Amino acid sequence: MLSLIDIRTRIEAGDLTHRQAIAEAREAIAERDPSIGAVVCSDPEPAVPEEGRLAGIAVGIKDIIDTAHLPTQMGSPIYQGWQPRADAAIVSRLRQLGAVPLAKTATTAFAGLDPTVTVNPRDHGHTPGGSSSGTAAAVAAGMLPLALGTQTGGSVIRPAAFCGVAAIKASFRLLPTVGVKTFSWALDTLGLFGASVPDIARALALIADRPEIDLTDDAPSAPRIGICLQGFAGDADPDAAAALSQAARAAEAAGAIVTDVSLPDAFARAWDLHPVIQDFEARQALAWEYAHHREALPALLGPQLDRAQALTAAQYDSARREAHHARRQLKDLFGEVDAILTYSAVGRAPRGLGSTGDARFNRLWTLMGVPCVNVPVPGDGLPLGVQVIARFGRDGQALAVARAIELALARG
Amino acid sequence: MLSLIDIRTRIEAGDLTHRQAIAEAREAIAERDPSIGAVVCSDPEPAVPEEGRLAGIAVGIKDIIDTAHLPTQMGSPIYQGWQPRADAAIVSRLRQLGAVPLAKTATTAFAGLDPTVTVNPRDHGHTPGGSSSGTAAAVAAGMLPLALGTQTGGSVIRPAAFCGVAAIKASFRLLPTVGVKTFSWALDTLGLFGASVPDIARALALIADRPEIDLTDDAPSAPRIGICLQGFAGDADPDAAAALSQAARAAEAAGAIVTDVSLPDAFARAWDLHPVIQDFEARQALAWEYAHHREALPALLGPQLDRAQALTAAQYDSARREAHHARRQLKDLFGEVDAILTYSAVGRAPRGLGSTGDARFNRLWTLMGVPCVNVPVPGDGLPLGVQVIARFGRDGQALAVARAIELALARG
Repeated sequence: MLSLIDIRTRIEAGDLTHRQAIAEAREAIAERDPSIGAVVCSDPEPAVPEEGRLAGIAVGIKDIIDTAHLPTQMGSPIYQGWQPRADAAIVSRLRQLGAVPLAKTATTAFAGLDPTVTVNPRDHGHTPGGSSSGTAAAVAAGMLPLALGTQTGGSVIRPAAFCGVAAIKASFRLLPTVGVKTFSWALDTLGLFGASVPDIARALALIADRPEIDLTDDAPSAPRIGICLQGFAGDADPDAAAALSQAARAAEAAGAIVTDVSLPDAFARAWDLHPVIQDFEARQALAWEYAHHREALPALLGPQLDRAQALTAAQYDSARREAHHARRQLKDLFGEVDAILTYSAVGRAPRGLGSTGDARFNRLWTLMGVPCVNVPVPGDGLPLGVQVIARFGRDGQALAVARAIELALARG
Repeated sequence: MLSLIDIRTRIEAGDLTHRQAIAEAREAIAERDPSIGAVVCSDPEPAVPEEGRLAGIAVGIKDIIDTAHLPTQMGSPIYQGWQPRADAAIVSRLRQLGAVPLAKTATTAFAGLDPTVTVNPRDHGHTPGGSSSGTAAAVAAGMLPLALGTQTGGSVIRPAAFCGVAAIKASFRLLPTVGVKTFSWALDTLGLFGASVPDIARALALIADRPEIDLTDDAPSAPRIGICLQGFAGDADPDAAAALSQAARAAEAAGAIVTDVSLPDAFARAWDLHPVIQDFEARQALAWEYAHHREALPALLGPQLDRAQALTAAQYDSARREAHHARRQLKDLFGEVDAILTYSAVGRAPRGLGSTGDARFNRLWTLMGVPCVNVPVPGDGLPLGVQVIARFGRDGQALAVARAIELALARG
């Protein structure tokens, strides 16, 4: 994989020019993408800034995020060839840092559940996950050192786990969603994908203009980690359970204080009601597409929106109250642990491209608005990951604990 | 003015066809707008549905709200002729109800502070207020029975007061802002303008699909109304103070229990910090326009964004904490009163088109996310209004108290 920190180090040492760094990404796309299908389109003649802390970094932009220089097609024929007027706020911020928004990466239609053509770079017979399918695959295949995804259920953490890359779903609204196609305004959250936890920590600190996110000094030397199985969401596969144990043991061996955390009933209720909030808002956010292009909506999203028409404002209000209640309880829980460690996904990437997998171990945390990091767990076969979660607004702490676990796993 | 309820009553009685109702609005625009400048463009051949609870209602859409059939130009040459792909969620909802999104109404550039060419229909030598300038003027001039505005500081309540129309800034996110150009995602809120409080109550209940908003049954017969002078925002003009007294006395005579409310210090701090939240987000939301078209930004917005570049994440976080703190205190306050009654604006509409007026009596409530209603106060000269505010999510209660005051003022 291409490492953001490695590229920047080489540039700063004079061993690599900005132009060469971007050319490497372009060559990797030209060589590898034909068999993977992660990239929808890319800038044929990108301007390459030589100033900025992310100069020389080629970035993949999930294709529900507006770009003024490249079409934004939402993974749907309804937006075929659609050219927005302006860059999304996050794209403007990347340009301000000198990064090159080089490619649009494949998204499921409107970031829903219908698969794209993208395959998993680790095994082409498997899904890369979704909805940020192309984003995860492009980073995993070594085409791009940084890429943007979004998560409404589990669309950042799940594909990152399936493809074996590091990723963070940031705290709710830490990264601006202006210019990002809405599915659910209470849930949609931007995320970053990279080769390792330090790479995404560096990127997030710069993009959010919060240097403390990338400081390792304040990382607790003996972090209190609560293992959480999310029983209300059902069981994980034995492989995923083994990966979680492996990560917990490695963290403990490296000095972490590991305990078991069981979540009060409020969390099971919030987990259960996530789809009510999501779909009540999606019905409004995608009302134009539904009214004018119902026939062009894909096999899973169309019926999902059909069903959503029956949801009532009272159901939505009640779900929002439950979520609010759970969020307050979560604050108490984060008085007892620095981070929660749980599954990133049910198991390894499913075979075939019929499904992008299941978000059931992700959606509670999206609803809580807290930062979530996927840490790949080394092993044989298709990748597995674990999910590190911290208190709202403590993205740096989530990343610091994730980095500690990543290091511990590499040692052990 | 054109009354939504009156039009619907005549249609239901068979005294008016849907087509005639829309034709009346078109004729009024053709006749009156040349001297007012409220309408940017309108649909030359609108389809007129005959089904739906808002069939026959012509609606004005502030020109920062996306429409698939008409350009959306943001009040800025940067978006001259810009044609969005999709309708905003609120426009789709209007169409679903059978309404006709007939015209785009003039907005200040990106809903900022720079005036439009629109004049106040009550006296063409005065501003209609902003940023929903064309929306307020079009309703006041009897061109449209319903129009959409947005408020980030005071852009719904202030122009409604200056033009003498009823308006509600709804609870935060009660109406979906998907497809509305963002200035500040924590503040931007949609609002409705109409001829009277019952008209906007009917419209909001239908658009939000919450019938209870339009039920007068649950209105308290002796509402507890707290008069709030917002001393931290400075003094109002004597005219506005007299209008507030007039409204309070009328409400009391009609049975309301009127007391004085003084707000704890937390509210003065929140009021003071509103611009930090607004401008820190505006810097991100308008980053593309700022980076690529700084020279095309108008005289007030350009320098506002220049200054915003210096704001830090720490200032923003601190402001958000203060706002959160004030919001919790406001809940307690609404245990003691059913509604707050305060100024809608500093005074009558200022002379000339050099300024759209001042939002200082509005911005705290936008930050609190609570519903605010402008009630015009009868009298001589340019209009004055008072502002009725209720607890978050109690838009129906705000409207019920506003209606009681409107009736009491009409009697007195």
